[in-house]
Amino acid sequence: MRIAIDAMGGDHAPGLIVQGALEAAAQWPDTELLLVGDTAAIEPLMKGAKPANVTICHADEVIGADDEPVRAVRRKKGASMVVAGQLVRENQADAMLSAGNTGALMATGLLVVGRMEGIERPALAPMMPTMDDVGVLALDLGANMDAKAEHLLQYAIMGSIYRAKVHGLEKPRVGLLNVGTEAKKGNEITKEAFDLLEQAPIHFIGNVEARDVLTRNCDVLVCDGFAGNIMLKAMEGAAGTIFSSLKDAFGQSLLTKLAAAIMLPKLRTLKKKMDYKEHGGAPLLGLNGLVVKCHGSSDVVAVKNAVRQARIAIQGQLIESIAAEINGK
Amino acid sequence: MRIAIDAMGGDHAPGLIVQGALEAAAQWPDTELLLVGDTAAIEPLMKGAKPANVTICHADEVIGADDEPVRAVRRKKGASMVVAGQLVRENQADAMLSAGNTGALMATGLLVVGRMEGIERPALAPMMPTMDDVGVLALDLGANMDAKAEHLLQYAIMGSIYRAKVHGLEKPRVGLLNVGTEAKKGNEITKEAFDLLEQAPIHFIGNVEARDVLTRNCDVLVCDGFAGNIMLKAMEGAAGTIFSSLKDAFGQSLLTKLAAAIMLPKLRTLKKKMDYKEHGGAPLLGLNGLVVKCHGSSDVVAVKNAVRQARIAIQGQLIESIAAEINGK
Repeated sequence: MRIAIDAMGGDHAPGLIVQGALEAAAQWPDTELLLVGDTAAIEPLMKGAKPANVTICHADEVIGADDEPVRAVRRKKGASMVVAGQLVRENQADAMLSAGNTGALMATGLLVVGRMEGIERPALAPMMPTMDDVGVLALDLGANMDAKAEHLLQYAIMGSIYRAKVHGLEKPRVGLLNVGTEAKKGNEITKEAFDLLEQAPIHFIGNVEARDVLTRNCDVLVCDGFAGNIMLKAMEGAAGTIFSSLKDAFGQSLLTKLAAAIMLPKLRTLKKKMDYKEHGGAPLLGLNGLVVKCHGSSDVVAVKNAVRQARIAIQGQLIESIAAEINGK
Repeated sequence: MRIAIDAMGGDHAPGLIVQGALEAAAQWPDTELLLVGDTAAIEPLMKGAKPANVTICHADEVIGADDEPVRAVRRKKGASMVVAGQLVRENQADAMLSAGNTGALMATGLLVVGRMEGIERPALAPMMPTMDDVGVLALDLGANMDAKAEHLLQYAIMGSIYRAKVHGLEKPRVGLLNVGTEAKKGNEITKEAFDLLEQAPIHFIGNVEARDVLTRNCDVLVCDGFAGNIMLKAMEGAAGTIFSSLKDAFGQSLLTKLAAAIMLPKLRTLKKKMDYKEHGGAPLLGLNGLVVKCHGSSDVVAVKNAVRQARIAIQGQLIESIAAEINGK
């Protein structure tokens, strides 16, 4: 199998991306990695290593964090992210990974890789943290701001297949993000989606509330991109505020500093648990190929994890399974 | 002025509600309090006290926490909450307070007190906690699940007047809850609302993100009831999870118990800061009279605070000011 890696995207590109790719190449000799980016920048980072399963695919341009997504993808045809997308489109790669501009990657997915037949809107599906460290696949978290009930149905099906194929869950529990757990709760979209999800070939457990997500009350959390993004940022905001207040409180006196010293390892663990950046790459589901968004701060381990994730998805025929389910009816 | 109090609604009704009313009556002799509920239950709680400014208005029935809101309001015409609403409707009271069933109180507002002319959808407007203890008035947090841009505009105007009249803010900063701070972010509704808010007679500061609300980046947070409720519950969930994890971590050994002893007062303060129940009653704005939802767990202090809040709103002619702004154009 072949995986294209955008070597130029992310806070630590190309350095840690290339290093991560080299380590992944060593770990999985059966996987060919296509490093897409500026040859002059990538080659020196390889320090003379020429693994048989690593190829550099030269790309002249780079899409930056501040580039306007759609325009950048349309104009910078030679950008590493766009070239990686073309490799997937032309079946020269089975998947692509990028830690670059999220909006541009979504645009690359839609405009370059292409939408899967039968899918109206692709979804960005990161793992949200849960206290038991297992996580919940939440989708959509921002690819599509104006979802309809039918889109939520497709998210549920795609998310369910992803959890089964990539994470090996036998019967992923699908929950619908809502303002209450009763069946008739919510807005017009969730009410309509509830009825659709009840009829879908998934294990639908009903409405779930944002306050229970951290205790993993479901395996796949279905929501529209707007509400999902609000939920994620509200949690981030609350967690960030509490941790920074704790830091202040711990620094106030000698005694509190003593308490801090005792509690520090536990607080670090807790903080890490709450950090969704720790939870690997987020697939962009509903495209004609596998596109994985790695966090902007991705390091060597994150790149290796994303390659592992892509390998499992390819082996499990994720894209084919989604296409069969969506278009088989 | 006269304020009707639903003596039978809330976890501690009628005991603490009546006690709170008695204390409020003693503090503000110019305010007549109408205690609405079962005379046989209320009278003994007054322990022979017969303040000149407290009157019992007998009501036979009670709407319970599990009653289906609209049906309960329609059928239980003699319920304390409904009777209190009638007092406002018939101008026998300037405001009503209730710690009872939230949905039923919204139904009472709409069906009994009545919608203000020109207002399409009333909004529930609680204060959300902020780290500086000042708070943000957020609306709507659940009265209306399918808001249109025009509703958000009306929320902004009503919230702005409330903060000015009741909290004395000169120029309340109004923010629109969104998934990013840039002007063109969000879904169709927020994009349309953004344009309307820019033209409105308010101090609109643009889009705000859920993660910044706790640091009080605005004074009035405008959102649709669905997204607002998701935000609130996501914050509650994150805070609750962190505090319960901290509790576990503090209990693990003698040393961590020592740390807990040192940090306990600070943690209590922090926990209280994050608790939106601490922040008084939530007005239901957009009605032909003042309706204040007190938290279900309201105690003596909460009832007194709600009376104080209602007094200020009545003195500041809140309802008249909103009507003038909404219908004056």
